[in-house]
Amino acid sequence: MHILQFLPAGEHAQKHETGSHNSIVKKKTVVIQGLGFVGAAMALVVASNPNDLYDVIGVDLPSNAGVIDKLNAGEFPVRSSDPKVSECFEVARRRNNFRATSDQGVYARADVVVVDINLDVHKGVRDEHLDTSYSVTLDPFRDAIRSIAAVCKQDVLVLVESTVPPGTCKKLVKPVFEEEFRKRNLPCEFMIGHSYERVMPGPGYIDSIRNFYRVYSGIDEKSADAVEAFLKTIISTDEYPLTRLGNTTASEMAKVLENSFRAMNIAFIQEWTEFAETADVNLFEIIDAIRMRPTHRNIMKPGLGVGGYCLTKDPLLASWSSQHLFGAKRLPQSERAVEINDQMPGHTLGLILQHFREGIADKNILILGISYLPNVGDTRSTPVDPLFAALRDRQVRLALHDPYVPFWEEYQLETCSDEETQTGDYDAVILGTAHKTYFDDSLLHKILNANKPMALFDPHGSVSDPIRAGFPQHSYIVTGRGDV
Amino acid sequence: MHILQFLPAGEHAQKHETGSHNSIVKKKTVVIQGLGFVGAAMALVVASNPNDLYDVIGVDLPSNAGVIDKLNAGEFPVRSSDPKVSECFEVARRRNNFRATSDQGVYARADVVVVDINLDVHKGVRDEHLDTSYSVTLDPFRDAIRSIAAVCKQDVLVLVESTVPPGTCKKLVKPVFEEEFRKRNLPCEFMIGHSYERVMPGPGYIDSIRNFYRVYSGIDEKSADAVEAFLKTIISTDEYPLTRLGNTTASEMAKVLENSFRAMNIAFIQEWTEFAETADVNLFEIIDAIRMRPTHRNIMKPGLGVGGYCLTKDPLLASWSSQHLFGAKRLPQSERAVEINDQMPGHTLGLILQHFREGIADKNILILGISYLPNVGDTRSTPVDPLFAALRDRQVRLALHDPYVPFWEEYQLETCSDEETQTGDYDAVILGTAHKTYFDDSLLHKILNANKPMALFDPHGSVSDPIRAGFPQHSYIVTGRGDV
Repeated sequence: MHILQFLPAGEHAQKHETGSHNSIVKKKTVVIQGLGFVGAAMALVVASNPNDLYDVIGVDLPSNAGVIDKLNAGEFPVRSSDPKVSECFEVARRRNNFRATSDQGVYARADVVVVDINLDVHKGVRDEHLDTSYSVTLDPFRDAIRSIAAVCKQDVLVLVESTVPPGTCKKLVKPVFEEEFRKRNLPCEFMIGHSYERVMPGPGYIDSIRNFYRVYSGIDEKSADAVEAFLKTIISTDEYPLTRLGNTTASEMAKVLENSFRAMNIAFIQEWTEFAETADVNLFEIIDAIRMRPTHRNIMKPGLGVGGYCLTKDPLLASWSSQHLFGAKRLPQSERAVEINDQMPGHTLGLILQHFREGIADKNILILGISYLPNVGDTRSTPVDPLFAALRDRQVRLALHDPYVPFWEEYQLETCSDEETQTGDYDAVILGTAHKTYFDDSLLHKILNANKPMALFDPHGSVSDPIRAGFPQHSYIVTGRGDV
Repeated sequence: MHILQFLPAGEHAQKHETGSHNSIVKKKTVVIQGLGFVGAAMALVVASNPNDLYDVIGVDLPSNAGVIDKLNAGEFPVRSSDPKVSECFEVARRRNNFRATSDQGVYARADVVVVDINLDVHKGVRDEHLDTSYSVTLDPFRDAIRSIAAVCKQDVLVLVESTVPPGTCKKLVKPVFEEEFRKRNLPCEFMIGHSYERVMPGPGYIDSIRNFYRVYSGIDEKSADAVEAFLKTIISTDEYPLTRLGNTTASEMAKVLENSFRAMNIAFIQEWTEFAETADVNLFEIIDAIRMRPTHRNIMKPGLGVGGYCLTKDPLLASWSSQHLFGAKRLPQSERAVEINDQMPGHTLGLILQHFREGIADKNILILGISYLPNVGDTRSTPVDPLFAALRDRQVRLALHDPYVPFWEEYQLETCSDEETQTGDYDAVILGTAHKTYFDDSLLHKILNANKPMALFDPHGSVSDPIRAGFPQHSYIVTGRGDV
């Protein structure tokens, strides 16, 4: 048996390239399981590590052949505004150390397998055992883990980065490995760790892996040490020190707790948003005043809703785990946060319907912004989706604009150009996403100028008072502001 | 009519004392209504303002004659570790500008009245109208406001500092003034403002008024200007700028929202505390890891519960206001936060009862710390209270210790000395409050040394791992740590 040895990220590749011939110093093989939003970025970061330590193989399902083909052709499968994506690709191309495949046989060659597959929550699907309105199926995840355990080296390091119900590494990954290793008559020398990513879309996509804090753990000391050594070779841990937690359940819990904290704080403001509208006050100025206190900096502002892959499901994963994996209680506040957030777009919809009391069918409405986050083009679970669907169901004539989303995959719809936004003769504009460019480039000014008196719905409170004052003919309806 | 004119706090008293004789430059009279925890401190801060601008009269009910007598005798009625209390008193004594009375006739002489009376929530008292398990009675508050309006000058400034249901200044204070002024045949030249305090017990008591951020508002522009001018003469507004909000309801809402945010975040962690205990992880280390992210700094840690006058009731004031003053919806998350927090001490009680499975009657237990906050002696709504009561009801033999609380008013009990803590032959020690002195002075070491193997209950996770390791004979039960 041999323990993996890695060079820390600070020491440079020369060591490798001067002392010995490249073909003799065999690189470690890192296989990334799952080439989605996280896995694809992780693969690039590992391949372009500063010391050229690894050969990287990305694995995805045959049904995702498109992604595999793109990667092998040097094209990144996730649309990203981050220039570092192509820089990393260029490094990997020069090194010739990154390829993608659907052949699960490659796990046999891995020194490290990084698990980056999704573990989904099915909302609206009743789990009758637990009496919840959502369910979680571990089967696909278990199968994926088994596909590694069935063929891997006996001293492989498996690093789970997927967001999983707390307890998964201990209660699922490890037992599957033990079972398969027993079948294979191998000693249980595998190492299993968990380290959660905090990958964000947008221009900081690569840096959200390479230059950001990491929490990690292992099923035992040896595993945790191996995870630490591996992460040090790909992350700038001098600047962003690693945090080791006591066990894998702890780091699994940290991930879902940090997202639940955020989800719950967004949900909490919803009832105050409604109160502020009733009481004719400006909740935004109230929150700015409250944020003066350092102990209150993280209080959230009103908005359209919550999107993305994490906040919309992680609290449910936690509650499911407590009930299903530990036979304990549900987490009612965390569950309720998701429910409230899922209903948030309905609140803005209510304001719109109330404005068009006489009927909304056949009105012309422009939606500015589809992405769930400003200044990036990420439509995963965007709260604009249910709003769009509800308006479409009511026969509203809708135009869509988003500079970061030329094509809305989920609806197979092209969005309109800047010019087209100014020719619509709109009855209303909805600011679905507060992209900076709407204000910097005066696109909003142009739209307001080009239109007859209309309503501007501003769920994020992004249109400043001076802009509003400059266009007195338009009505402004700001979520969380009864005073406009 | 004359508008109040104040010197800003930066300009010094010489202006007053050199240019003209003191008895000629007539000082403004500021009357403080309510000499409790906030009002007493506010009175001192106003009396000791840097420019000697005011004569200050504190008013309280005849039933609080003790407080009035104390103040007139130069003794501060609230026990405080803040050395600035006596400094301020010394300034006032020299100036001879501060006295207290129960005579409500003094409102007639006031240029400014600062309202610092309590507005209480009655928990466990059903409001049948609203179907809530708590009720709010505005009558005493209305009467107090009326006692000012009935006699005050026609251009008085009334500054409400009490935490009130949002809407109170507009929907109660102003109408009462209008009614009384009509009766008195006076033009409505009164000014009404709201500015909430963030007074904290302990060594920063005076500074929590003088050197801290303030939010304020008025029922109209003139009122807001007058509040601003007044606050600038008593608060270091250069360093801690004032924030003016659009109307009084907004600043009333800001106060209850900031406390609800805090209460809700404490409540949120409770379900994770229980999950962590079940899942055998250390929630404290998880939260430390999460706090690395600036967006997650305000996530709370497990504890015994919530105390003090504000967090335990302000969310209810808000929900009551939404329902009663605005005919709108309740705020279920905010209400639920208070319920959860009120039940928190029951969780630690459960851990204690579980430890003494064989029966807890006649066990010797020492409670270290009674105050609801560390390092100060403030027992208002302390979560130690219900824990103490529950153990007493179970015939536990209890000893109490708190260096900041020599006498526990609510129970009329003396606490024991440092020496007495080491002679008790305890079956358990409960760290009710994590006063630093327990760790700095090694009091805890001495107790752990002096006792046979016993259980130490640590709801705040304050006993460090090295201390725990040093006393392996004792059992440690830490709320939110399944791994100890």
